[in-house]
Amino acid sequence: MSNPQILFRHTTFHGPSLLRNKRSTIRGNTLRTQLEQLRTTGRYHCFKLKWHPAYDEDFPLTWPVPTNLFWDSDVAKWIEGACYFLFEEYDAEIDSAVQELVNDIRSAQQEDGYLNVHFTVVAPNDRWTNLRDMHELYNAGHLIEAALAHHQYYKNDLLLEPINKYVNLIRSTFGPSKDQKHGYPGHPEIELALLRLYSVTGHDDAYELARYFIEERGNPRGQDGMNYFDWEEKQRGDSPWLRPNHYTKAGSHWYNQAHEPILQQKSVEGHAVRAMYLLTAVADLLCIHKPGGEFSEPEKWAEAVGRLWDNMVQKKMYLTGGIGAIEQWEGFGVDYFLPQGTDEGGCYAETCASIGVMMLAERLLQRDLNSKYADVMELCLYNGVMTAMDLQGKAFTYVNQLASSDRHPSQRCDWFWCACCPPNLLRLFGSLGGYVWDFGCGEGDAFINVHLYTWAKCTFDAGEGGNSITLEQKSNWPWEGNILFQLQAPLSVSTTVRLRIPGWAEGNFTLTPSFSGHKVENGYLVLPPSYTSSHPNFSITIGGFSPRYITPHPYTGQRTLALAKGPIVYCVEDFDNPYETNHFKDVVISADSAIEEEQTVLEGHQESYVKLTTVGWRREGIEEPSPSVGPGCACFNSEQLGRERKLVFVPYYLRANRGGKGQMRVGLLRK
Amino acid sequence: MSNPQILFRHTTFHGPSLLRNKRSTIRGNTLRTQLEQLRTTGRYHCFKLKWHPAYDEDFPLTWPVPTNLFWDSDVAKWIEGACYFLFEEYDAEIDSAVQELVNDIRSAQQEDGYLNVHFTVVAPNDRWTNLRDMHELYNAGHLIEAALAHHQYYKNDLLLEPINKYVNLIRSTFGPSKDQKHGYPGHPEIELALLRLYSVTGHDDAYELARYFIEERGNPRGQDGMNYFDWEEKQRGDSPWLRPNHYTKAGSHWYNQAHEPILQQKSVEGHAVRAMYLLTAVADLLCIHKPGGEFSEPEKWAEAVGRLWDNMVQKKMYLTGGIGAIEQWEGFGVDYFLPQGTDEGGCYAETCASIGVMMLAERLLQRDLNSKYADVMELCLYNGVMTAMDLQGKAFTYVNQLASSDRHPSQRCDWFWCACCPPNLLRLFGSLGGYVWDFGCGEGDAFINVHLYTWAKCTFDAGEGGNSITLEQKSNWPWEGNILFQLQAPLSVSTTVRLRIPGWAEGNFTLTPSFSGHKVENGYLVLPPSYTSSHPNFSITIGGFSPRYITPHPYTGQRTLALAKGPIVYCVEDFDNPYETNHFKDVVISADSAIEEEQTVLEGHQESYVKLTTVGWRREGIEEPSPSVGPGCACFNSEQLGRERKLVFVPYYLRANRGGKGQMRVGLLRK
Repeated sequence: MSNPQILFRHTTFHGPSLLRNKRSTIRGNTLRTQLEQLRTTGRYHCFKLKWHPAYDEDFPLTWPVPTNLFWDSDVAKWIEGACYFLFEEYDAEIDSAVQELVNDIRSAQQEDGYLNVHFTVVAPNDRWTNLRDMHELYNAGHLIEAALAHHQYYKNDLLLEPINKYVNLIRSTFGPSKDQKHGYPGHPEIELALLRLYSVTGHDDAYELARYFIEERGNPRGQDGMNYFDWEEKQRGDSPWLRPNHYTKAGSHWYNQAHEPILQQKSVEGHAVRAMYLLTAVADLLCIHKPGGEFSEPEKWAEAVGRLWDNMVQKKMYLTGGIGAIEQWEGFGVDYFLPQGTDEGGCYAETCASIGVMMLAERLLQRDLNSKYADVMELCLYNGVMTAMDLQGKAFTYVNQLASSDRHPSQRCDWFWCACCPPNLLRLFGSLGGYVWDFGCGEGDAFINVHLYTWAKCTFDAGEGGNSITLEQKSNWPWEGNILFQLQAPLSVSTTVRLRIPGWAEGNFTLTPSFSGHKVENGYLVLPPSYTSSHPNFSITIGGFSPRYITPHPYTGQRTLALAKGPIVYCVEDFDNPYETNHFKDVVISADSAIEEEQTVLEGHQESYVKLTTVGWRREGIEEPSPSVGPGCACFNSEQLGRERKLVFVPYYLRANRGGKGQMRVGLLRK
Repeated sequence: MSNPQILFRHTTFHGPSLLRNKRSTIRGNTLRTQLEQLRTTGRYHCFKLKWHPAYDEDFPLTWPVPTNLFWDSDVAKWIEGACYFLFEEYDAEIDSAVQELVNDIRSAQQEDGYLNVHFTVVAPNDRWTNLRDMHELYNAGHLIEAALAHHQYYKNDLLLEPINKYVNLIRSTFGPSKDQKHGYPGHPEIELALLRLYSVTGHDDAYELARYFIEERGNPRGQDGMNYFDWEEKQRGDSPWLRPNHYTKAGSHWYNQAHEPILQQKSVEGHAVRAMYLLTAVADLLCIHKPGGEFSEPEKWAEAVGRLWDNMVQKKMYLTGGIGAIEQWEGFGVDYFLPQGTDEGGCYAETCASIGVMMLAERLLQRDLNSKYADVMELCLYNGVMTAMDLQGKAFTYVNQLASSDRHPSQRCDWFWCACCPPNLLRLFGSLGGYVWDFGCGEGDAFINVHLYTWAKCTFDAGEGGNSITLEQKSNWPWEGNILFQLQAPLSVSTTVRLRIPGWAEGNFTLTPSFSGHKVENGYLVLPPSYTSSHPNFSITIGGFSPRYITPHPYTGQRTLALAKGPIVYCVEDFDNPYETNHFKDVVISADSAIEEEQTVLEGHQESYVKLTTVGWRREGIEEPSPSVGPGCACFNSEQLGRERKLVFVPYYLRANRGGKGQMRVGLLRK
């Protein structure tokens, strides 16, 4: 069992595919664009520990978080992503930047191992005084992840060594002993990083620290009989009513999933990215078998993470895989509260949150192979995540609303002061091969579980004798469902291949050569060694690629239809429907209308996509109610529809790339 | 021109009507029940300025507002309501309580005129240091209103005299001079009270002070170049992030309508009651003609208050006349954000807020006679307001959701720690006669504008000669639309009567005797002196009493239908539909279904009402989605409906009176 951040090296995207396109764009453009952003904003040199004018800035919207607080993590995430892409193609400029940054980080470490720019340069006396808000452990987590990626590529300990030293300091600072702080990060991240550190290096302390952070979280009487965040607030002499803007009320520790112990949490709450990073670590801890070190009641933890996953997917996730309806706390609203745009009461759907869903789904798949996780992982990848970057790989989104409004048009930005999302895309796509499948081999048995379809090849060691196993898949996914597989495995190894049958295929698939004894287990078609050995070349055609209408759960109160084809969710934009002036708020479609498909090539780009066309109508006469109309009026009883018009749909990930006025919508009113 | 708090004395509810029933219940039960609550909670004796154990209590949910902060106003509102009802029927116990309270208030006044329990007993050093949160001027406003009611009934200055002294102190404390504070109340109320004080006593300072509070409000550079609330925060040495729970973000002065000057406000925002009290004062200031004292640009103020009214009624008001979708700030959400229950993202609709709408509507009618204001005033009265008290007049609601949920069943409470709503009902119903109509007489011309129909009589002075004018109306309103009028006026006076034609009547009415030259101006049928002198007995039958389906604006995203009859909005309760277990969330009705009416008498009560019955269906198969269902699924495309069942509707005001499990809903899904 391994992590995508390690497994990805076994995968090459060697044939044409949408995923390869995106990865090429990122390797070719994004890596450099982001490096340039790091340089111009001051992040690149921050580990040199000199004063930067940004440190003098006020930060009225984000208090107490200064705009520079995440710089460590921005650099770390870029290093991590860069190292992943360096595996694929050497690049002297990138290599040299990574090496310079690593040198700087090494030299920024304090004698006791402490390693954080803000709390060394700006606020040296405030170390570990505000775990709730100040992202100190979050930054440490990203440094750990960077160190692992660096170690993996450079095969030296130049970064890992100082990071291990830092981890030791953290380990000695936090824990159950009387002289230790019983704290845990306000923004989870270090937990999953520590577990990977343990997986790679066997660093027991890293494992124990992660487990402590997870098990201690939300303890109502953790420190001096108080919740840790309340205790540290008291230590600071702060009032509970002194709180950041995203803390709606005093003591709203649900914001960072610390309102009660994780095992007791009934629903997924608060900041969406924090929730995903935290649960990814919980799921990973369930994957790791450390003799004598596991959770004392693993089944309860599995139940908790499963309960929170189901709550999220069934009641708190957008059609695009976006999560987090509420801007104020960048997180979850009540069950089924999923307005499409801010003018309807909210839609946030942060890019990092959908990346976090993918990370969590991948870990859950390791423990419980079930296509329900992989379906959501793919949904996020092609929609909520992929929409966050433009075609050139140079502009990004932070929030991914499903409908624009005058206040929030559909658009992208070059960068953000809080720049978590762009480098998160970098490292996700850098390690994307690790999400496509997982595989393993031991004592004559091998397995490959194929989660995502594309055009790619994986190769891994077949155990003794220096043999290897290779599985190649060729397809035009996500546009067509036919995938050719070619397996090369030594005869001595019994190889089982499992192929995901997506939920939207509704069980429709054709395997060639056919196999009378096939079975589908939890959404995966199982091809046993008897089949794979006699048919190393096989293909599957997944059904469900005709465009379809999808709709959110009725309890969302949204009587809307959206278009989807395979894993791709569509939207309408004013670029294709230039007559639209009200963000498609009054456009009605019918599930009875036929949908036409058209293969389309983007002008000036190699990329092609399938455009969908159907018909719609516009509700009329409701935009400006007469002044004499009260709150409830019979006059709304009959909604008049205007003449039928053509409506063009493009993949949601493609939005805001071709000009236009920024008017966009995913779900349209249902006739 | 006069205020309802004065005009009401001219009206008697002398025949059977729903309004008389409610008023009798309040006079008979509520007045005493609330007096008892004042006594047992400590409020009654608070002006004796002794320490009370409640002053030691923590108030973690409402910081910095201690639970006793509103006690002055609770007592004041009870005195005000008691004085209104004493006019109707002398009651020795009530009289004696009022007199004792007034004595206490007199003795509680400080030498300089200051008069506030909390800032005398509990926090004597904190006077005027936190206008934003601490309700100091709000309490003063209610004391003024109590003093006016007391003066009116007792015809002495025992309360008015100390209150005038207090007003003088406030007037010298706040104002535009260099040595004055440029502040205004966080919770508006005193403005409308000061204007009434001026109207009754001609107290110029009261007028000037109200005008100052209104005109200064939201000045971004009012004090030392800052918003006043920011300035006083700085004076206290507080951080902007130290804020009460209802302040979502630092500096969210929209919470109390102080984010910008009123003239610049484009939409009605923040705490709903504050907004209503404030705009009532603005509207009243537009009504008062004080030579040389008016607003410098009255038309701009009229435009502002009209704009905010329209925004509220068209985009932020529930079908019941409730306003305020959001619990956190007890106020308005974004336009068209009107979920029916808290499990859908919010519904607050505070009782006081709908009372405030009535107060504002009444003032707007004075300046701009238009049935659109009276329609909303009546909507609030019979629905959002009347629902706030049980049949016995002993239990109350604070919030008035349109749909219950497991967390918030439909129920009432005996009292609240923040007890603004119950005594607000008292004083509203005490002065209700003043909302039914307004009238006046001068130099041989008289007018009566009839806003509300019921069974009542008004009598007022017809000018010189000791003559009077009487108009009597008899009807079974709100159940039937036939109203008989009898006018008695001296021949020397030309009397014009105007009768409101409600919007839901859609112009259907029959006047008897008929009158060929009749005209309807802004929703009022005008009966000129030529008609009224020849037909002192006339009747009108208002149409639109057949039960009808109403629906919120489509932009609310609610595809729901509710039932209404005349001004009454209906709901379903599990009491009549005991099979229901999911708060009617899945019940579907159709605007094509016939509605049956049935006159019903409440067991054990004299009150009768019209019950409505239609048929509905239950959506099936969506409550528990299969675990494999992702966020968007074709399986929701067709909503299966169960078998047709009978559905019984009762007036919304009647909810939670007859037992049951507290399951209730106003708007049901539209087929």
